[in-house]
Amino acid sequence: MSISVRSESPFLSTLPGRYYYDSSIYAQEQERLFSLLWVCVGRADALLATGAYQVVTVGMESVLVVRGSDGVLRAYLNVCRHRCARLCDDLCGQLKGSIQCRYHAWTYGLDGKLLGAPNMMGHEQFDRVAYGLLSVALEVWEGFIWVNLADRPAAIMEQVQGPISERFGSYEPLSNYQLALLKVGKSISYVVEANWKLIIENFLECYHCGPMHPELCHLLPGFKSGKSYVAGEAATLADGVEAFSITGKASRPPLPGLPPEDLRSYYGIVLMPNILLNFLPDHVVAHTLHPEGPTRTRVVCDWLFDPQEAARPNFDPMDVVEVFDIVNRQDWDVCQLTQQSMTSRAYRSGGVYVPAEHHIRQFCDFVLAMLD
Amino acid sequence: MSISVRSESPFLSTLPGRYYYDSSIYAQEQERLFSLLWVCVGRADALLATGAYQVVTVGMESVLVVRGSDGVLRAYLNVCRHRCARLCDDLCGQLKGSIQCRYHAWTYGLDGKLLGAPNMMGHEQFDRVAYGLLSVALEVWEGFIWVNLADRPAAIMEQVQGPISERFGSYEPLSNYQLALLKVGKSISYVVEANWKLIIENFLECYHCGPMHPELCHLLPGFKSGKSYVAGEAATLADGVEAFSITGKASRPPLPGLPPEDLRSYYGIVLMPNILLNFLPDHVVAHTLHPEGPTRTRVVCDWLFDPQEAARPNFDPMDVVEVFDIVNRQDWDVCQLTQQSMTSRAYRSGGVYVPAEHHIRQFCDFVLAMLD
Amino acid sequence: MSISVRSESPFLSTLPGRYYYDSSIYAQEQERLFSLLWVCVGRADALLATGAYQVVTVGMESVLVVRGSDGVLRAYLNVCRHRCARLCDDLCGQLKGSIQCRYHAWTYGLDGKLLGAPNMMGHEQFDRVAYGLLSVALEVWEGFIWVNLADRPAAIMEQVQGPISERFGSYEPLSNYQLALLKVGKSISYVVEANWKLIIENFLECYHCGPMHPELCHLLPGFKSGKSYVAGEAATLADGVEAFSITGKASRPPLPGLPPEDLRSYYGIVLMPNILLNFLPDHVVAHTLHPEGPTRTRVVCDWLFDPQEAARPNFDPMDVVEVFDIVNRQDWDVCQLTQQSMTSRAYRSGGVYVPAEHHIRQFCDFVLAMLD
Repeated sequence: MSISVRSESPFLSTLPGRYYYDSSIYAQEQERLFSLLWVCVGRADALLATGAYQVVTVGMESVLVVRGSDGVLRAYLNVCRHRCARLCDDLCGQLKGSIQCRYHAWTYGLDGKLLGAPNMMGHEQFDRVAYGLLSVALEVWEGFIWVNLADRPAAIMEQVQGPISERFGSYEPLSNYQLALLKVGKSISYVVEANWKLIIENFLECYHCGPMHPELCHLLPGFKSGKSYVAGEAATLADGVEAFSITGKASRPPLPGLPPEDLRSYYGIVLMPNILLNFLPDHVVAHTLHPEGPTRTRVVCDWLFDPQEAARPNFDPMDVVEVFDIVNRQDWDVCQLTQQSMTSRAYRSGGVYVPAEHHIRQFCDFVLAMLD
Repeated sequence: MSISVRSESPFLSTLPGRYYYDSSIYAQEQERLFSLLWVCVGRADALLATGAYQVVTVGMESVLVVRGSDGVLRAYLNVCRHRCARLCDDLCGQLKGSIQCRYHAWTYGLDGKLLGAPNMMGHEQFDRVAYGLLSVALEVWEGFIWVNLADRPAAIMEQVQGPISERFGSYEPLSNYQLALLKVGKSISYVVEANWKLIIENFLECYHCGPMHPELCHLLPGFKSGKSYVAGEAATLADGVEAFSITGKASRPPLPGLPPEDLRSYYGIVLMPNILLNFLPDHVVAHTLHPEGPTRTRVVCDWLFDPQEAARPNFDPMDVVEVFDIVNRQDWDVCQLTQQSMTSRAYRSGGVYVPAEHHIRQFCDFVLAMLD
Repeated sequence: MSISVRSESPFLSTLPGRYYYDSSIYAQEQERLFSLLWVCVGRADALLATGAYQVVTVGMESVLVVRGSDGVLRAYLNVCRHRCARLCDDLCGQLKGSIQCRYHAWTYGLDGKLLGAPNMMGHEQFDRVAYGLLSVALEVWEGFIWVNLADRPAAIMEQVQGPISERFGSYEPLSNYQLALLKVGKSISYVVEANWKLIIENFLECYHCGPMHPELCHLLPGFKSGKSYVAGEAATLADGVEAFSITGKASRPPLPGLPPEDLRSYYGIVLMPNILLNFLPDHVVAHTLHPEGPTRTRVVCDWLFDPQEAARPNFDPMDVVEVFDIVNRQDWDVCQLTQQSMTSRAYRSGGVYVPAEHHIRQFCDFVLAMLD
């Protein structure tokens, strides 16, 4: 059997198959891409109290994110400076004013300073300042916590401004959604047996929406065409549909800051490297990707609501949760199906993007540039 | 401790231990041997209806075997030509006249031609002929389906004629068994934690039959000697034994085409690379080997019967199934026991074949030649 | 983020993190260190009868240890000399005067000589002497069985004399404990998800005893200081404590040979590469380490008692077993916690030993020297 030569095709190629399963390419991605970019790790409102913490894996590192007594969120490598025992081994929890290593009782302030080390604090050659926790850069942008393992991180705006502006037509419309104020009403964690890039590539095109997402296309009929969006233009809810909910009925008012022209709009945006945002009139859905290996990704999907709505006693987000939960499972199914063929000789030099998918190639080229 | 030097032995050596566990040698075997030879994947009578399909792994590829509306069996790489999603993810099933990719609804005929691709069929630069399914060579030989991933496969007869002729004395006696007509009466799938070559080497010698297979030797007492067969000469059922069944009684007539001299005969043949055939007077047993890794092999054992017998309402194959099921489990036990020592320094330059096993070395040399 | 340069520290560094997870370094350790040193594999009194055997993994080899009809313990590679099938696949058991391979019935004496090989014993070119089992050097030292895979093993005393003499001040006090006579009263097997060296490093320092081992420090209050022992000086039981038991009460007399000055003493000794000894007045605790991979170690903990005590009808060792079982579990917890950070960039060039841990560096340097 022989395989047609891709280079003669008038259409763009995907990345070669090995980019989706090779463990050394995956290690490079973790080392260069996920360790040099800002990586989204969760919502700031999940860590409100002093000492509230979470532990996340970023690149190859376990990172501890904790709220200080001064109200500031900080991030550290989750390792003791003495013999490197992991400091916190739960995924989240509450510290009592300090961080103590179980092994030899070295104790750090929530600000990372070394407060105690048995028998060592009075030692004349021991420079306690040199043994504080190793800081990791942290920024809160629009209520999302981002960390960056690079030596000299770029400003986070350099990373997020472009995609936001490109999608809305300018950066300003983002503020209509008051993202920083929204509250998580529901969160679902999925394990997808596929490379993280297949999940982003899936989100980047709607060519699959017609065949794969009947429920989604019922609410947003423009998706049936399979075409990509036009910069600045929203997808629009179907006539007769009140809201992006499983029933098509609205259970809550639109977000308070929305202008009239966006009361029936949907916008989807990828913020590299690991968050997908979906803007709806009365809620926002955020998918955060956590690569766990070359062929496995954990995806946390958060449904965000106006804080006044989320605080109502009888608040029930399930009418809108159900829609994206269905769409998510449909997408994971085909991402996994595609992952299974990445090792085939048929994909050795990649597959083909049809014209409606040609913009995905920019994503591939961005990844390649980061790995160079 | 020191290990005796094999080269001084008057007996032949086995392959060095690493040939039985090294993952790079295994990958070479899959790439060169299983991807260049015809590989048996099952019985043609399992896929009778138009659209009936099975999915098999050959070398590193998932291969789709399907019966066309013209009655012809064909094989394809089980991947969509667009973004390479796996087309069929069940092991077998029934297609309704076409093969559709779930992801973007590209649709292929059972003959592999691209029939539909949303938004693309009218695209002036889209050459639909170039995007048909990737064909894999397929032949049906004596009711067995064989596929071949090579660019220019040799004729299948070049692969099967030699071993058949060598064992029976000539190729013609094979036709006595009317293999193509036989029906599967029982099938058992085993997972053996051993390299596929250990299973073939085990089948190639009867030096272990006395110690390991009392039930087998009771029926075929010549096996106790441990000697290999003589070309053209059968092993013969014991005096007082009617049939190769657990009771020694016959439950069905001999195969209709058998000449008198084979009414009490047993012949065993290896067809490289992955099928073991056992010819008995009233049935044939076929072991098909599916390597699943350097130290794991799935073996499917099919018991084949005269179609008239198999169609009887009260047909019960278990009296003969039981014999080879016992023999199989005894063999897998010692194959697994041997696998465990392959990493030992004692096997670094291999073990020793006694004279009754010297012919196995030809198999080893064939494998080595394929890997060169 | 930047990491402080270790070389400027006045304190010694641990090994770099990769020594605790890299599979090629682990393979080197197994090949050079565990295959060249004497390795402790258990107690001789567990194999009293003729034909009693145990199977242990040493380096990359399965080793069979068996008591001969002459009462002598011997060790062999656990592989048949013919096709290398594993001979014994239970961890321990009882042979009936000979060792027979299941596959082709080659049979060996308990002294390793080939006694039978079907069809081969009379073969003129078959030198049966050349096909005896492959011997592994074995020594019994103080009731412990040690084996050595090296071509020319050093004397075992060269390996054990130094650490014993260094700890007790001289070699002679060891005899007070009559180790060779003691009997196993209780044995617990633990699986620790940590590199074997982390377990030894943990045993080598008491800087963690205060934070980690309150029960131990209650019995041996000197451990709270976190300081290492002084050569020849014991740790001493707390005032008011009768014995090293969970209640602090004594349930049995001290070992008969102990001089008065050691009736309240504790000594801990590491015998490289894999046994930790704890000498108490009325029992001895031996931890034997069996590495099972770069990040996994099985530890067998044996509590040894005076044979007269152990033979009493109502003998109950649990009052002293409970103490070290608690200590063990506390240690495995922090060894596992430390293992998790070995891949962190924070440990790429290692962690830091405080002065009370500086002697551990000798262990690290010994390992490095063995790998050179």
